[in-house]
Formats: sequence, C-alpha cells, structure tokens
Amino acid sequence: MKQEKKPLITSGFTPEEIAEDLAPLVNFQEEGLAKKDLEKMFEKRLIPHFVRYDLPEFQSLYNCFPEEGAELGAQLSLRYNQGVTNWIVSPGGVLLEELCCQALCRLFGLSASADATFMYCGTYANQQAIYLALHRHAERTGFNLAQKGLSGFPNASKLAVAASQEAHFSVRHALRILGLGEQSLVLIPIDKERRMNPYKLKALLEEKGDKREIFCVVSTAGTTSTGSIDPIAAVSDICEHHDVWHHVDGAYGLAFRLLPKLASRFEGIERADSLVWDPHKQFGVPIPNSLLFVRKKEDFDRMAIYGEYFNRKDDPEPNPGFKSPPSTRPLSALPLVAAIRFQGMKRIRERLGAPLKAVRKTWEKLDSHPDFQRLHTPDTGILCLRIVPEKFPAAELDNLQKYIYEDIKKEGRRSVSMTRLNGKYALRIVAISPCVTEEAVWETIISIRRTARKYSFTV
Amino acid sequence: MKQEKKPLITSGFTPEEIAEDLAPLVNFQEEGLAKKDLEKMFEKRLIPHFVRYDLPEFQSLYNCFPEEGAELGAQLSLRYNQGVTNWIVSPGGVLLEELCCQALCRLFGLSASADATFMYCGTYANQQAIYLALHRHAERTGFNLAQKGLSGFPNASKLAVAASQEAHFSVRHALRILGLGEQSLVLIPIDKERRMNPYKLKALLEEKGDKREIFCVVSTAGTTSTGSIDPIAAVSDICEHHDVWHHVDGAYGLAFRLLPKLASRFEGIERADSLVWDPHKQFGVPIPNSLLFVRKKEDFDRMAIYGEYFNRKDDPEPNPGFKSPPSTRPLSALPLVAAIRFQGMKRIRERLGAPLKAVRKTWEKLDSHPDFQRLHTPDTGILCLRIVPEKFPAAELDNLQKYIYEDIKKEGRRSVSMTRLNGKYALRIVAISPCVTEEAVWETIISIRRTARKYSFTV
Repeated sequence: MKQEKKPLITSGFTPEEIAEDLAPLVNFQEEGLAKKDLEKMFEKRLIPHFVRYDLPEFQSLYNCFPEEGAELGAQLSLRYNQGVTNWIVSPGGVLLEELCCQALCRLFGLSASADATFMYCGTYANQQAIYLALHRHAERTGFNLAQKGLSGFPNASKLAVAASQEAHFSVRHALRILGLGEQSLVLIPIDKERRMNPYKLKALLEEKGDKREIFCVVSTAGTTSTGSIDPIAAVSDICEHHDVWHHVDGAYGLAFRLLPKLASRFEGIERADSLVWDPHKQFGVPIPNSLLFVRKKEDFDRMAIYGEYFNRKDDPEPNPGFKSPPSTRPLSALPLVAAIRFQGMKRIRERLGAPLKAVRKTWEKLDSHPDFQRLHTPDTGILCLRIVPEKFPAAELDNLQKYIYEDIKKEGRRSVSMTRLNGKYALRIVAISPCVTEEAVWETIISIRRTARKYSFTV
Repeated sequence: MKQEKKPLITSGFTPEEIAEDLAPLVNFQEEGLAKKDLEKMFEKRLIPHFVRYDLPEFQSLYNCFPEEGAELGAQLSLRYNQGVTNWIVSPGGVLLEELCCQALCRLFGLSASADATFMYCGTYANQQAIYLALHRHAERTGFNLAQKGLSGFPNASKLAVAASQEAHFSVRHALRILGLGEQSLVLIPIDKERRMNPYKLKALLEEKGDKREIFCVVSTAGTTSTGSIDPIAAVSDICEHHDVWHHVDGAYGLAFRLLPKLASRFEGIERADSLVWDPHKQFGVPIPNSLLFVRKKEDFDRMAIYGEYFNRKDDPEPNPGFKSPPSTRPLSALPLVAAIRFQGMKRIRERLGAPLKAVRKTWEKLDSHPDFQRLHTPDTGILCLRIVPEKFPAAELDNLQKYIYEDIKKEGRRSVSMTRLNGKYALRIVAISPCVTEEAVWETIISIRRTARKYSFTV
C-alpha cells in the first residue's frame, strides 16, 4: 500500500485486482468462521475498495455517510428489523411511519389533505407517481386502469408524459415499465440554466390538432446533471390550467425547501399532485430512505390491493402497505426522525446550506479564471465546468475533460464525475456532505488545472 | 405496564394509544436533543410497540431478527452506506455484489449462463421478471417494448400471465403497473395441497381458438398462505414445450432448495427463465435483501438505460445498475455474505430446517386431535388450520377463528395470522426463526383451544 498524507477516497484498483481480494469472501464453506476472523477479512479485503463519502474530496455523487442521529435510528431499525407495511408486523413501526409522513407534509408546507409514504428509492417513487397520474387519466376516460390496463384507452400510443431533457433517467425507466414505452416521452426545451422552459410547456399543451395526449408533466427540483430547479410555480399554474397531473421529482433538491433563501424556488409544490424526495441523498440518512407525497391522500387508494392473510380491507388499524406495491419495507422513518430530532432544524439547515455555499463561492471565484468555463449558475450544490486552457486545440477539449476524469479516478485521492451537456463533455462537482468546504472544492479546481497541464505539453 | 413472566410479543396497544406515545418523536424542533435523551425516548415510547420477531411465540409472518453474522455485515453496510449501482460509487461494493450473485447461482445449481441482481423486495423483483417476459414476447412479435410500449402488440388486451390463485398479490401489483391490468391474470386451479395443478396449466396452453396470449407462467415455491411448493419441474417442462417464460416466485421458499430433503422439489428451477428469492425472510438478513435470477445473463440487457454522467455504455467496469431500474441501492450483498460465511452452510441448513420440523411434527400430532382441522400437508414452515370444537355450530365456525385471532392479537403474548382458504377463515402459523420449536407451536395450539373454550360457553 502506498503511503499518503491524506487518506484515499478509494483504492483505485482495477476490477480484476478487487475481484482477487474479494474471492475468499464469497467462497461459501460448510464450516463457519469466527466473528473476528470474518471481521478482519472484511477490513483487509473489502473496505479499502469502498468509497469514503465522508472525506471532503468526495465530490462526485449523491452519497454520504450517516449523520450521527440517523445512525442511532438506523441501529435500532437494524436490531429490531421491523417491517412496516401492515399493522400486525409492527404497530410501532407503522405508526411512526404514518406520523412521520404527516409531520413531513407540514414541514414542507404541503396542503392539509396531503399524505406521504416511504418508498425504496426515487426511481420506484417516480414510477408510482406516473402510474397514479395514468390511473386518474383512465378514470376520466371512464375505466379502471388497475383492472383493464392500457387497453382501456382508445389510443394508448398517443399517451404522453412531458419532462425536460434534464429529468432523471428513472422517468424513462418508469415509462418502459408502465407499458408506455420511451416513445411516450415528450421533451420540453430548457433555458440556459438548464431549467425547463415553461413557455415551451405552455405552447405544447395548447397545441391543437391531432396531438399527443399529455396526462402528466414531470418537473425536477434539483436536476441530476446540474442541480437546477425547474420553475415549479409556473409549471403548477400551467398544469392546473390544463388539468394535467404535475409530478415534481425533488429526489435531490426538495431538502433545500427547508432553507429560507431557497424556499421561494419551491413555491407551487403544495399544488403539485405528487412529489418525490430522497432523504438518503444529502440528508445523511442511510439508503434506503425515499418518500412519495401526494396532494390528496385518497390518491393512494389507487394503489391498494386487499388481501386475505393481512392487509384486509376491513382492518381497523392503519396499513401503510396499501400505499405502494412492496409487501416488505424497512422502518426508514426511524433514522429520518432520529436525524431530525438529534440535530434539530437549525443544524439541519446548516448542514444543507454548507455545501451550497462552497459551490456558489467557487463559481464566483472562477469568474476571474478564464481557463475554466462555467456551464451554468449553480442553483444548488452541483457545478459543471470545462477546463479550456489557453491555446488548447478546440477539437481536443472533449478528450481533455475525459482524460482528467480518468486520471483523477485512478489516483483515488479525490472524486469528481463527468457528464455531457449540449453534446460536450463536462466535469461535474457534486457537494453533498457538509465537509465539502469551499477550500476542498477549490483544491479540486487546482487539481484539474494541474492534470490538464500534463496533457497540454503533449498536444 | 403489566408485569408478565414471558416478555410480550408487542404492547397490544390501540393505534390511538401508540400515537400518543409517539407524538413527541415527530414533534420536529429547532434545537436538537442529546443522544442519550433521544435514545431514552425511543426506548420508552417506540420499542415497546415493536414486534419481537426473536421470540418463539412469534408465529405470524415472515420476519425475523438479524442473525449474528448478518448483523456484522449490516453494521459495515450501515457505517459506510455504500451505494452499489455503479462502479464509481463503490468499486468494492459493486464487485462484492457481482461475485455474490455468481456464487449464489452456483449454490442454487443454476445454469452456467445464469446471473442475478439484488433487488429491494420480491414485489419489485416479480414486477421486473414479468416485464422481462413481456419484453421477450415483444421481441418475438417484432418490436422493442422499451421503446414502443404495449401499443406495439396487435391486441394488448389478449396478453395474459398464468398463475395459481395462491400466487402472491405482488403479481397483481405487477400486472397493474405494467399496464396489463388485473384482467390479464389467468388463474390455474390448485390441487388439495394448494399447489398449481400442472395438468390444468397444460390444458390451458393447449387450448385452440381465439384464446388468451399467455406469455408468462408464474409458479410459486412456497406460497404465502400455506407455504406450498408448486410442481416446478412439471411447469418448466410445459413452459419449455410451449416456449413461454417461466418465472418462479421463490421469495419465501427458495432457501429450502439448500436442504437435501427438499432439494428435489426444486428441480426445474435451473430451467426457469427467472427466479425470485428474499433472503430477508427466514435467512436472517435485514430488510431489504432480495434477489432476481435470470437463466441467461443477457436477459438483463433489456433493463439497461445508459447515462451521461454515469452508467455509460462504454464504461469498462461493471455497473450493476444496468440490471434493474433503481439508481440507488444499498450493499445488501454484505450482510448476506457475512451470514453465510459466519454460520457456514451446515449451520444454515440447521437454521432453515428447525422451523420446518416444528411445523411438521405439530401437523402429525394434530392427527389425533379431532377438534383441529388441518387444511393442508405442510410443504414448508406454514400450517393453516381451523379449530372445530365438538358440537360447535358450523355456521359460527368462521367467526370463531376470527375471534380467536383478535383475542390472541390483543393479548400480545403470541402472534398468529389469519387467512381465508376455500372461502373459509383459517388460523395460520408461520415458523420462520429457528427458535420456533415444536413446543412453542404446540403452546399455540393449546392457546387456541383455550381461547375457543371461552366462546363455546357463549354459543
């Protein structure tokens, strides 16, 4: 092992090298191992190949280590391993989940009729939200989607969902699974800050003639690529006017509704029909921890399937399993409640705000560094940029970003990600944990510049 | 609090009483709480309302406390909170998952071309399996389901999935979400042991004329109600002959493939197209821990969506996120690997076998107790029965089972469940953890009889 002053983000080993380390772990034997030997095996062979989300140099993806209060809650969840979909499996777990959902509706300023349910992840939450939209559309068409399926529509191939090109790819997954196919996705153009252009949405919905049957609009509060927040209030207005389901994918961004400075950007969520949030992103609770909110609690009735051995229709106690398909889910509400009560809202706001500030300051500072091209104004904690060294051949700039990304990855000292915006490769800095300071982000800038220099000499 | 010799399974409180206990937990405040105060709050207000799956008297559902090795693995998963869908988020996590999947394919005797992926739960795994079946059917029809959706089929309303009435309700959830609707479910009759009748399946597939287009058969290895194992080999034969996708829902039962005595009942799984297993049931690993196996690894290619910022098509490293929709999943492979390596296969078999023996012995013993009616021969660890006291009015027997179920639930000393078989209410004993001994199950029988006596006097 190389000696480094700073700990590595990860080993930087190749798949073959890691597979060699891990092989003994999956060599299932008749006899068991002593606990301490097993622990040593994991420590020596597995953990060095993990990624250290807790280091300030981790600036690539939406992951973080559990916050202290969340960990306390997660420990209890783990020890008692409570399922929570129906009353008899855990009365305490069921009620904590229900009460937590109601408290979160209030925290985010949703309407009094709103409700929520814990989901496994934003992907399945988005899937379910679009299913609910489609179900309502079917009701209006005059049939029950759950019974008849898409065949109930006069022309299912015209059904469409509108979203910007920046919507998360889970929307495409949802359209595949829901039987609509990706052909049903209508892309709304974005503005220069990579937010959905509401005028284009309006124009689309006002189109006359033999047009697509748009039953759902997905806006994004904190896009995956750049963290941009779509104009939610404007989209809510338009959807209300056209009586179309408005789903807000706030998997990453909704947490920032809690920051007074950003709250106004979330106006309109209380009028959205559904809303997704992943506390397992920057909120510091362990995976899985995700929520689906609906504006009217009755909307969840569309999900219910009543059973014989549990989840009976006439059960007097609450069964959260009526609100979504899974018949087994862990008590994710507990780590979330523990995180909020341990930190208190004041410290939570500090936690959420710190990485945003680091990114914003870096963006400002880069204004006077012409060898960096800023690709958007950061709405949240993500900054996409390209290094464009003076006199560097324009045709090679795309490759340069890729080389730098690969170099940084191999080094294992810091972690950034890569994306493509307007057809061009860009480096992407994601600040999730509060330890990602302005200094740590600036070190990344310096490191990008240093790595670029290596390639400048060879051009 | 009442003093009891044996600890209670759960508090037995009403929803209102529990809500009162929990209210302070979700009263989100500006200031945080000290860790030990928060811990005390949970201990006092929440944990008494959990269900103690670790007690021998818990005999109602598929839950258990984590096994010791599993807990060690889960602790590491929790501390490092690794995501595993793509390489850059956790090289070690990604490879452990991949290697574990391959090792499990070998453990269950699947074909060399097989592959697996971790899923959140059996429900989503079943959903995905039927989607894969439908996708293959679309390919044979000449189009790409992911792109065109169900509209690509000449007559989507004829598409059908065959399963027995004992299939888990997640199959109905899947048909809803997939846009087929519940109308697409064709029920295959069962035999007296509540297993799918393969002759009826064969007859259905051989029907001529303007019939349903059955593209998938779902058999169940360990049904939810009675733990029955469908005749898998026969179903595999029939599906092969008719070239129809065979999906085996082994969420509960597949683990028993590891017991030599039961292995022959699982012959044919190696020829099934897909297979679901939930280690988070009786295997003692924490929720979520579920797997989807496919016979041909290329089948997973149908799930892939390639991205720009990660999961790129040309990535040289493995990205398990290509195999299923979620873009975030925890490292469930680690608790599973830890459980297997800590116990060794020998102890795992003992663990799995113990509750089966307890149920089998009870079933045998009941032969000489005519006040109990046994509703099936237990294939696995579930026993459904009715108490039929001598001279008890036949018309009231259904109510009697319900009263007993409610009484036992309120008492909080033991936990059984209730189901309905052939339109009649039945009490259901589920033995999941190895601490559910023959004695513990017999105590339940005695307790049912005692409770029944209470109602006998009033009739």
